[in-house]
Amino acid sequence: MMEDKAPNLETDGSKQRLRFWLQMLRSTKYLENSLREKLRREYGTTLPRFDVLAILYKSRDGLKMSALSDGLMVSNGNVTGIVDRMVSDGMIEREDIPGDRRAKLVRLTEKGVTEFEIMAEQHEGWVAELLADINEQDIATAHTVLAKIRGE
Amino acid sequence: MMEDKAPNLETDGSKQRLRFWLQMLRSTKYLENSLREKLRREYGTTLPRFDVLAILYKSRDGLKMSALSDGLMVSNGNVTGIVDRMVSDGMIEREDIPGDRRAKLVRLTEKGVTEFEIMAEQHEGWVAELLADINEQDIATAHTVLAKIRGE
Repeated sequence: MMEDKAPNLETDGSKQRLRFWLQMLRSTKYLENSLREKLRREYGTTLPRFDVLAILYKSRDGLKMSALSDGLMVSNGNVTGIVDRMVSDGMIEREDIPGDRRAKLVRLTEKGVTEFEIMAEQHEGWVAELLADINEQDIATAHTVLAKIRGE
Repeated sequence: MMEDKAPNLETDGSKQRLRFWLQMLRSTKYLENSLREKLRREYGTTLPRFDVLAILYKSRDGLKMSALSDGLMVSNGNVTGIVDRMVSDGMIEREDIPGDRRAKLVRLTEKGVTEFEIMAEQHEGWVAELLADINEQDIATAHTVLAKIRGE
């Protein structure tokens, strides 16, 4: 571009922050792809399905669909379609909410709980393997920095 | 689960690594959502479109569709559909590759270059703003740790 640029672009660390963000994206994508491939190969399942199981596992009394969507870590995709298939597969059940005729609660079945626990243990091992070359001090430091991004 | 667990699960830092990975996902998703919203509001465009522009901007001589897909940072989605629309919008042009009758080269038009440069400058500013509370030393440290994940 030929226009004048804001004078502080180079000096205020914005280039450094942009490079950091691109690195964050690349590394996240790399880990996500590795985990997606392992889930597919070992369990014939997908990241969004795993993600749905993980959220419902933490809220064992069940969640409304809206709360489930809000909690998803990976891509939201078609949450309704994913849940429909997981109901067919017997991993999730739907239940009426007293006093709310429009919304339903979704919750893990016993089968869903068991299958998630098996996968979750292996998933934790995969993450540990993928991050094995990074020492715990470095992980703690990076964790703190990443948490600051959301003002935590 | 009632089965025996591998004895080193708790002690070898795998829980810490899992928590770090979940933090990484949350922070990445937070920044991605913020940038997606800003791109939509300010330019009526999407992250995948911005991503396509960014990749083609770095390879000004053009890329095959396969190389473009491989380079995408965000979700791959329907790259063909995205490129088709960007051709209609005059941001991208397609060109035959001599000696290769099946593949085409895609490359930015002059309009695509100009529009990307305007958006890229603002995008850099948004990233700088979103990461403004994190000091440069912390960013450098986290950058190094994230780079190690891919063995860089």
